[in-house]
Amino acid sequence: MSPGVSSIIVYRLPWTWKCSKLLMKSIHAGLNAVAAILAIISLVAVFDFHNARNIPNMYSLHSWVGLTAVILYILQLLLGFFVFLLPWAPLSLRALLMPIHVYSGLLVFGTVIATVLMGVTEKLIFALKNPAYSTFPPEGVFTNTLGLLILVFGALIFWIVTRPQWKRPKEPNSVLLQPNGGAPEGMEGSMAMNFGNMDKSDSELNSEAAARKRNITLDEAGQRSTM
Amino acid sequence: MSPGVSSIIVYRLPWTWKCSKLLMKSIHAGLNAVAAILAIISLVAVFDFHNARNIPNMYSLHSWVGLTAVILYILQLLLGFFVFLLPWAPLSLRALLMPIHVYSGLLVFGTVIATVLMGVTEKLIFALKNPAYSTFPPEGVFTNTLGLLILVFGALIFWIVTRPQWKRPKEPNSVLLQPNGGAPEGMEGSMAMNFGNMDKSDSELNSEAAARKRNITLDEAGQRSTM
Repeated sequence: MSPGVSSIIVYRLPWTWKCSKLLMKSIHAGLNAVAAILAIISLVAVFDFHNARNIPNMYSLHSWVGLTAVILYILQLLLGFFVFLLPWAPLSLRALLMPIHVYSGLLVFGTVIATVLMGVTEKLIFALKNPAYSTFPPEGVFTNTLGLLILVFGALIFWIVTRPQWKRPKEPNSVLLQPNGGAPEGMEGSMAMNFGNMDKSDSELNSEAAARKRNITLDEAGQRSTM
Repeated sequence: MSPGVSSIIVYRLPWTWKCSKLLMKSIHAGLNAVAAILAIISLVAVFDFHNARNIPNMYSLHSWVGLTAVILYILQLLLGFFVFLLPWAPLSLRALLMPIHVYSGLLVFGTVIATVLMGVTEKLIFALKNPAYSTFPPEGVFTNTLGLLILVFGALIFWIVTRPQWKRPKEPNSVLLQPNGGAPEGMEGSMAMNFGNMDKSDSELNSEAAARKRNITLDEAGQRSTM
């Protein structure tokens, strides 16, 4: 899950705004690819574990929701790779799909959190028999706390990813590309406001980086992959 | 849950945009108050049921997350009532709290979906013993399907509530009130873009209503509660 989560917030780290969009997209795609491979390995491990112990597969709501999330995640990865990373998709298609891409990414993230919480619930009920889960054994209290913390973690990511001031400023040449705003929920209405935000955030963060970024932005910054 | 969900999307029905903001806020608050009362009644019923059957209370992750959601929901209701419905809160406080209000509302909604899915998981494991849940009895498959549909329902609400074109247009006099955009993730950057959206949506929906709304908007529309 960790690479997938990193990839969600990778555009939202102000110190990366000086890096080129292509570099950041590649990091976003690469982290998601790693996460998808880990997810597939985990699924294979679960099926192997079940088969070795003669436990039926895919009977629980946890498994249905979890498999749905992994399938959606892989579709999302393929769609993102072909439409947004490879250079051949027309701008109109990118503009059409970007809001869907952002929405599905966050939806899959939320679905994964729900799947984890269901999995924790199942595991506690199955594993805690003597003493039972309902007698408040330390393992139960500890794991409930872990579940709450996973929820808090999800809430923090959701907060970071929906703050307009942490959104990566648009490239000057991509204004026509995303008429309704491409990032979570189309956050800004105009270049002016967008750059206004950028400057405001910068002044709180790193004015040298701000100056460098402004230069790079004007230069189009294609090849500055010095991260 | 139903009144709470209605209240989430109540600003996003274009045919309500001609109604006054105060009326819509009152409906939003009223529906949430009904939902909060129903939630409290449900909690009392759960505790009574547990006590009558000598089942311990509050041991599961489902109960922890669910109680957290209800407490946050009531806090959210009180905060909304005192800050946004009553007329005394200063505009700067409203502007500060609006993004948090929108974020917490959606967070509580997502948390409730997760709580429901955990509750369904628990109930299936406890109730299906003979035949067991793991043998794919019809009740299990039916209820898993219900769980998936609840997730799809949550995804639809999340989609509706994050589309900029379904956001209620801002009141002319509230521009200063919400400098970063008040609704989910501050969707529009300028009045111009906002009203552009409004007109565009109207032309697809109801041009008579559009004409009426434009008049009302200019009149400030305080008392038009003819919904």
